[in-house]
Amino acid sequence: MAAARTRYALYYWPTIQGRGEFVRLALEEAGAPYDDIARQHGAGKGVPAMLALMKTARRAPFAPPFLRAGRSLVAQTASILQFLGPRLGLVPAGEAERLWAHQIQLTIADFLIEVHDTHHPIAVSLYYEDQRAEALRRTGHFLKERVPKHLGWLEQAVGTGRYALGARVSYVDLSVFQVVEGMRYAFPRTMKRMERKLPRLVAIHDRVAERPNVAAYLASPRRIAFNEMGIFRRYPELET
Amino acid sequence: MAAARTRYALYYWPTIQGRGEFVRLALEEAGAPYDDIARQHGAGKGVPAMLALMKTARRAPFAPPFLRAGRSLVAQTASILQFLGPRLGLVPAGEAERLWAHQIQLTIADFLIEVHDTHHPIAVSLYYEDQRAEALRRTGHFLKERVPKHLGWLEQAVGTGRYALGARVSYVDLSVFQVVEGMRYAFPRTMKRMERKLPRLVAIHDRVAERPNVAAYLASPRRIAFNEMGIFRRYPELET
Repeated sequence: MAAARTRYALYYWPTIQGRGEFVRLALEEAGAPYDDIARQHGAGKGVPAMLALMKTARRAPFAPPFLRAGRSLVAQTASILQFLGPRLGLVPAGEAERLWAHQIQLTIADFLIEVHDTHHPIAVSLYYEDQRAEALRRTGHFLKERVPKHLGWLEQAVGTGRYALGARVSYVDLSVFQVVEGMRYAFPRTMKRMERKLPRLVAIHDRVAERPNVAAYLASPRRIAFNEMGIFRRYPELET
Repeated sequence: MAAARTRYALYYWPTIQGRGEFVRLALEEAGAPYDDIARQHGAGKGVPAMLALMKTARRAPFAPPFLRAGRSLVAQTASILQFLGPRLGLVPAGEAERLWAHQIQLTIADFLIEVHDTHHPIAVSLYYEDQRAEALRRTGHFLKERVPKHLGWLEQAVGTGRYALGARVSYVDLSVFQVVEGMRYAFPRTMKRMERKLPRLVAIHDRVAERPNVAAYLASPRRIAFNEMGIFRRYPELET
């Protein structure tokens, strides 16, 4: 595994977990050396460097997160994880398993868009406060219809093994952890009610949280706290 | 290429183009043998068979489209195309090219969600008519902010070659064709105004439309017409 010596450069917004967190968790669990570029200072670092790369790169990404690995520049969270999985030992070897892992990750990506749009149902360019009425309406449907559908599917998708793809942890499990964490933060009452129907997701969440590298990461300053700038936001008025 | 003899089974809603159309276009361009299961009748065919598979398959997809290829069952449009690309000769051989193709396709997938949500900003479970006020507001921002950003990025992403990934057609080009077609159908005035800034996308659209297999498909009854049940819908009141 020559690639194991690669030092990765992650480009993502410095003040939120957001989609970048799914990549951070993979790098941290694997103990991979990486720079969280936009959170660092100096030449070639910081948000300006990230934005510059989006303008000048030959195959410029549409949006963060994106990852530099040697000569590769990979964007789209699910694609980054598909790329990193084999390199970090975070996905099984078989093509069928890798397809399934990617499919689950892509469905999580769709869910994240729906989570985001609970507080931004009209436009990303508007403040939440300027689309609160629509947010209330959308979130009502989201909590009643979409969360049971998405998390119910995910509960089945992760199967009955120790982890989603069997005995060993994969990037899918790290993402399950993050989804459970995020949903608990944003919609605590809904999750309290719903978690008894999601025992596998909760079990995977707990197992991931206890993994030494993840636990060390979560306790470190590298883990940004949830806040009202990210995907998962706690606006209590939305959860009625 | 033993896989070239595979007969594919596509599962998608029978009355709309929707996301399934991106897969249909790939199969048609390649001249691959396939069954559009939910549009057929008899045992193991039709929508009931599709829905049954979503309940009983070992690794059941979250939603259509999904594709059966031998023992593989692949869901998520971008993942299906990533899977089919090498098998149908619709993506170059290099890892970097395949990563880039997938990245573009995933960004198109994100755009399609935004297109869909112009007419369904509140809930998929509601009729358009019951969320028209919010649709008007969302679509205004979409046309002014998101369409230029997405299509402007895509215009750069496809580069300056004959096709998006070089001299040979790929599934990305077929998707570009479908995006241009769909946007022209749903938002004709916006596209009329904007297309002079999107010469590469228009050129690729035109080249794809003239490809013999695609042209034959478009003229056949297999091509479902755009309508107000799919992703791209023409509601003139939204385009003001």
